Amino acid sequence: MPASPIRKLVPYAEAAKKRGVKVYHLNIGQPDIETPQMALDAVRHFDFKVLEYSHSAGNESYRRKLSAYYKRSGMDIDYQQIIVTTGGSEAILFAFMSCLDAGDEVIIPEPFYANYNGFAVAADILVKPLTSYIGSGFALPPVAEFEKLIGPRTRGIMICNPNNPTGYLYSSEEMETLRQLILKHDLYLFADEAYRDFCYTGQHIHSLNLQGVEDRVIMIDTISKRYSACGGRIGALITRNQDILDTVLKFAQARLSPPSFAQILGEAACDLPADYFDATRAEYLKRRDVLVSRLNAIPGVYCPNPGGAFYAMASLPVDDTDKFCQWILESFSYENQTVMLAPAGGFYGTPGLGKKEIRLAYVLNTAALHKAMDCLQKALEEYPGKI
Amino acid sequence: MPASPIRKLVPYAEAAKKRGVKVYHLNIGQPDIETPQMALDAVRHFDFKVLEYSHSAGNESYRRKLSAYYKRSGMDIDYQQIIVTTGGSEAILFAFMSCLDAGDEVIIPEPFYANYNGFAVAADILVKPLTSYIGSGFALPPVAEFEKLIGPRTRGIMICNPNNPTGYLYSSEEMETLRQLILKHDLYLFADEAYRDFCYTGQHIHSLNLQGVEDRVIMIDTISKRYSACGGRIGALITRNQDILDTVLKFAQARLSPPSFAQILGEAACDLPADYFDATRAEYLKRRDVLVSRLNAIPGVYCPNPGGAFYAMASLPVDDTDKFCQWILESFSYENQTVMLAPAGGFYGTPGLGKKEIRLAYVLNTAALHKAMDCLQKALEEYPGKI
Repeated sequence: MPASPIRKLVPYAEAAKKRGVKVYHLNIGQPDIETPQMALDAVRHFDFKVLEYSHSAGNESYRRKLSAYYKRSGMDIDYQQIIVTTGGSEAILFAFMSCLDAGDEVIIPEPFYANYNGFAVAADILVKPLTSYIGSGFALPPVAEFEKLIGPRTRGIMICNPNNPTGYLYSSEEMETLRQLILKHDLYLFADEAYRDFCYTGQHIHSLNLQGVEDRVIMIDTISKRYSACGGRIGALITRNQDILDTVLKFAQARLSPPSFAQILGEAACDLPADYFDATRAEYLKRRDVLVSRLNAIPGVYCPNPGGAFYAMASLPVDDTDKFCQWILESFSYENQTVMLAPAGGFYGTPGLGKKEIRLAYVLNTAALHKAMDCLQKALEEYPGKI
Repeated sequence: MPASPIRKLVPYAEAAKKRGVKVYHLNIGQPDIETPQMALDAVRHFDFKVLEYSHSAGNESYRRKLSAYYKRSGMDIDYQQIIVTTGGSEAILFAFMSCLDAGDEVIIPEPFYANYNGFAVAADILVKPLTSYIGSGFALPPVAEFEKLIGPRTRGIMICNPNNPTGYLYSSEEMETLRQLILKHDLYLFADEAYRDFCYTGQHIHSLNLQGVEDRVIMIDTISKRYSACGGRIGALITRNQDILDTVLKFAQARLSPPSFAQILGEAACDLPADYFDATRAEYLKRRDVLVSRLNAIPGVYCPNPGGAFYAMASLPVDDTDKFCQWILESFSYENQTVMLAPAGGFYGTPGLGKKEIRLAYVLNTAALHKAMDCLQKALEEYPGKI
């Protein structure tokens, strides 16, 4: 089981804080946006006396509300095609375990969310990384590159759209490419859409709306980012393939039920007004623009403009971002402040890649982002491993 | 992945209810005891504005309270030896995945909790069932029987104490037998102690107090039954083996964190007065006595007196309890009422065993238990497959 690549730096951040240095956390996707008041209030006002197991697939009332939310978002999904999970994490694990046998392979464009590796180990499947490049803004690799990787054990392609860690939003042409690939090679498409509601440049193409592959698409969802409700641990697996639903339900039954309290929160949040995301989206867009323009103004730094999510990848003029991200916590401060960043190596499946790159999560307000960028700029001036 | 053996009967229970028949549910371990008011109130009064991820190992404040609870219960456990999980379910899965390789074997006395099979499939390990018998009240099988099963891939023994589904409470002599077995054969002991606080006849021997095997014991805990908080999905994995803790933490980090709301509930419940369980235990004891005496008064029925938990196993004078448990829902009612029971076959790993046995969960009050037993008694008089 691989250790989380981001967590390795935690002791250095804790040591910096003990020295009295303020640390701006751009290393994790924990949004600072407030969880919607009405959704928190729904939890406060529960009226049961026994905290019972819910249905293994999630409360029917919640699944019906989710179905309506998907329909409003342009996806025709019945509540019976939804299985509520303990976070998007469990949905990924259930998808791998239900669709794949031990030793089967899934192609994932890299860089990708590092925890996919952990779920792959747990499900005993193999991740085949396919490199996307910062120079092209992390666009989908060409079809020919996919074809090279597809072998007898290849059973699926996994995407995260918009992407964590790159923020890349797949175009309709790229989604059509994926559709043709899964159709031609009889593959599953695992689509992690945790950040679907955070698109700034371009429109989100829903994997569940791809035509002619309805039984090949498994969508992973979560309320963690959408409603800034990471601690609730409520996600969902959605597919139109009844055999997969039947199998996933068996895994869901073995673990009895998803958490009850946060299902209440999720159900209430489905009733938020249609313009709820406008303010959140506007806030993230403002942050993105600050972050990306500040990064690209630093000599030697390059950051492609991400179309969605709240992440950006940047290349730095340093020897090794593992070393740099440790150094900036351990040996640097500016006005008694510093910044915690995620070295990108952990987001690549191919060893050695990402050594010049970092991932930044723009989950702080613009004032804090400016201060964090001041730190980064100064640090790059002082860093002994600058190249 | 095996289907839950209990769930197969759900459609028949639903059909009975649609016909207007009242169904007494003795089939599942969902207690009717109220969740402690002060613990529910702690959730109502949370004061955060952002529902953030908690620590992957659980909130430190909760782990420290849990440590104090274990110490009061006679177990010297540091908070750093506790990893909070999403229900006892996840603790079992983490234990299997962290301690065992694919193809490794765990010996489990049968009948056992059917979902162990599901977690074994997910972790790709093999369950080796070792039969215990209703005639001896489901006592631990003799050492010689364990020795026969122990082979080169055997890595552990799993027990549930007190037991689900039998209610059996292991004696100090039996726990000493297990201690010597794991010491002699260098095995892990996975001890599911979900029902530790529900002992009526005899004292619970804590697996974590076994001497000389401190690094071989992994205890599985949960608040589900202790505080009637099944829907919270909060459990814990406890061990003094640092290597296992390190590995479990990696799995915990991959899924980010356990649910936040129910951690608040669990933390508050640790402050319940020492006599809190007295009333609950007295209520279950009363129920047990009603159930067991009513069962043994029915001609041809035998039910050994369980020492703990809230389950009992009984043998019935029928051809096949799978058929009988379906028939009693589908084709029988008495005063427009019937009872849902769990056929015991699903609790055995050895095919064909348990065909004359049922499991009953005494999670209803004594008045309801009497009515359910009236139904069972009448049903056994009418059942065409009676022998």
